Order: sequence, then structure tokens, then C-alpha cells
Amino acid sequence: MFRRILTVRAPRRGLHEITREVAEVVRESGVREGMCHLFLQHTSASLVLNENWDPSVRADLERHLDRLVPEDAPDYTHTLEGPDDMPSHIKSAMTPVSLLIPVEEGRPALGTWQGVYLWEHRDEPGARRLVVTVF
Amino acid sequence: MFRRILTVRAPRRGLHEITREVAEVVRESGVREGMCHLFLQHTSASLVLNENWDPSVRADLERHLDRLVPEDAPDYTHTLEGPDDMPSHIKSAMTPVSLLIPVEEGRPALGTWQGVYLWEHRDEPGARRLVVTVF
Amino acid sequence: MFRRILTVRAPRRGLHEITREVAEVVRESGVREGMCHLFLQHTSASLVLNENWDPSVRADLERHLDRLVPEDAPDYTHTLEGPDDMPSHIKSAMTPVSLLIPVEEGRPALGTWQGVYLWEHRDEPGARRLVVTVF
Repeated sequence: MFRRILTVRAPRRGLHEITREVAEVVRESGVREGMCHLFLQHTSASLVLNENWDPSVRADLERHLDRLVPEDAPDYTHTLEGPDDMPSHIKSAMTPVSLLIPVEEGRPALGTWQGVYLWEHRDEPGARRLVVTVF
Repeated sequence: MFRRILTVRAPRRGLHEITREVAEVVRESGVREGMCHLFLQHTSASLVLNENWDPSVRADLERHLDRLVPEDAPDYTHTLEGPDDMPSHIKSAMTPVSLLIPVEEGRPALGTWQGVYLWEHRDEPGARRLVVTVF
Repeated sequence: MFRRILTVRAPRRGLHEITREVAEVVRESGVREGMCHLFLQHTSASLVLNENWDPSVRADLERHLDRLVPEDAPDYTHTLEGPDDMPSHIKSAMTPVSLLIPVEEGRPALGTWQGVYLWEHRDEPGARRLVVTVF
């Protein structure tokens, strides 16, 4: 078992690709056939797999989740940390915060169009701790 | 590999913290560095990680999911088991029913504000079986 | 570790049960106590556990997700591949694309009412690659 902490700071709110960083940890681990696990130690961001080719997919995805979980819902009570805080916790419960990906030939066995994304839900992103385990 | 069945009955609908119960199984397993897997054998409840500090987060989360998946949608056809049944199945498909958490120094490697919750979607909760595996 | 690629083509959009196919791979692996991991190499379908008894559950689930992620949202920009394409990517981010299921006595340790489903979001489904790992 090989474990690394990745610290990632997204430049802004939205989907931020980390496929390369994850592949690099898998390479470093020396594991050829196995599993790679990502775990985000936060409750206001997510980890998702999505299309890595057309950036319009990410823009539409972000816009639609904002519609389902708007900042101005009248009945939020947890509002001290700003209008983007409570929606971030809800988004983080509705999307994954952990991913388990097969490793084949020393690489994450992603589909042709799959990329790994840190989905930052806060407006002013802090550094996010990601526990990566390869086994 | 160490496996235990946890039986949990939430006192009512909503988010019910089980971080302590999970940590206790990890301790019992004797595993210092590894993984802890939780699997809920039901389709009308969920398992989520969320903020464990301010209870208003859980109240808002519950209220918002109820808005996205209301009990009175006019076109549900699966209604024999009560108005909270079909929404429970939908919520259970939109949120996790299984969690994989890194273990470090004999404990679940959660973030500072992360707690593990059984999210009960039924009004009159039965006992829920949770398969916990530490490896 | 035992790995197989399952190729599944859903007959149509919607929830397509694959519990039997998964149990067959577990049987083939010879693993008695362990874990079974499913990973979908696509970004426009999902893998979910849901009620396997009453088909009305699947119909209602499908209808409700279509309501939350409609085809005619006015602001989608990723529209070249048809009206069902962008909703598929959103649905795939809001529901699991990977499942980790305990194995007990040589079988997936599912609850009494749990079935494993490929949730196809496209209108004209292609063949879907599923990486199954038993360990």
C-alpha cells in the first residue's frame, strides 16, 4: 500500500482537472495492477469523473448544479460563512468526495473521455487535502 | 480483512452521526494503515460525509434534499408504502450508500470537520444493516 | 486480485439490471470473502444500487431524475451530440459511476431488496465497458 497526501488549490470555483497529478502518484507507487483511491478531507468540494474533452461540458455541469442548489434559497439557516457556504455542503453531499479507480499497466484505467476533477464549490478556494492510496 | 455488521437504528428521519461507531470497528480491527469500507444494505437511506460541527448544516441539507425530491410529486406510481417511500429510493440513488475511508494510525483519516452520517430517509426508521470492512 | 471487463449494452435508456452478471464474475474469481468493485468507463451512464422488486421504483426514479435534469434547459451550450447528451453528463456526475460491494460466501453481500443497475442515460445506448475487480 502506497499513500500520498496531495494538496490542491483550485484557481477558482468550478471543475479543476487533476488527472495528471493522480497518474503521477500511481506511477510513483510502482503498482502495475491494482486500485487507486482518492479521498477528499473536506465537505465543501467534490471529486468527480467527467468528460475531459469539451470544456462546455464542465461549464454546463457547473451551471446546472448551481440551479439545483442555488445560493439564494430563502430557508438556509447556516449562512455565517457566506452565501456560497451552505450550497457547497449540499453539493458535496450530492456528488462524490471519494473515487476508487482501477489501475492497469501502471496507470489509472480511465475511459477514453474520462478525466478526474476536483470540483471546488467555494468562491475563494483554500488548499484542499486529498489522501491518495494505491494498492 | 476484518468484517463486522453494524446495526443502526436512527431515532428519526434525518442525519444521524455514526463516526464513533465506525472508529470503534477500526480500533477493534487492529489495522493501523489501510482502508475502511462501509456498505448499507438498504435502498431508502444513505451514508454521507458532512460537516460535524454546526447542526444547522444538517438541517439545511435535509430541507434542501426534501425540496429537490418532494413527497407530493404528482407522478409517483410506487406509493403503496407511504408518501416517504418513493422519495427515499430517489434520495438513496442521488447520495452515497457506500463509503471508502483511508485508515491512518488506527483511525479513519477524516478531515477536521468531517463526520460520518447515516442519512435516514424514512419517517419510521427500521434497523439498518451496515457491512463494515477494514483491510 | 481478479479482473474482468464486462461489456453491457442496455436495450434502451433507463435502469438495466446487471446483478446476475456481477455475481457471475464474483463466482468465477473464486473469492469467498472480500470486495467486488465495479467501474464504468463512461461519462453518460451510471451504476446504482436500487430496489429490485417493484419495477415502478425504477420508472419513478428515471422520471424524477429527468425532471431534475431536463433535456430542454435553455442554457446548455454542449448540444452538438443531441438533447440527451448534456443531461447524461450531469446525471452521471450526480449518481455513482463506481460501486464497491462486500463479498461474503462467494457472493455480493447485497441487501434483500438491492439490485445492481447500469443506468443508461442516452437514448441510443452504445456498448458500455465495466471494469470488475474482485479482491
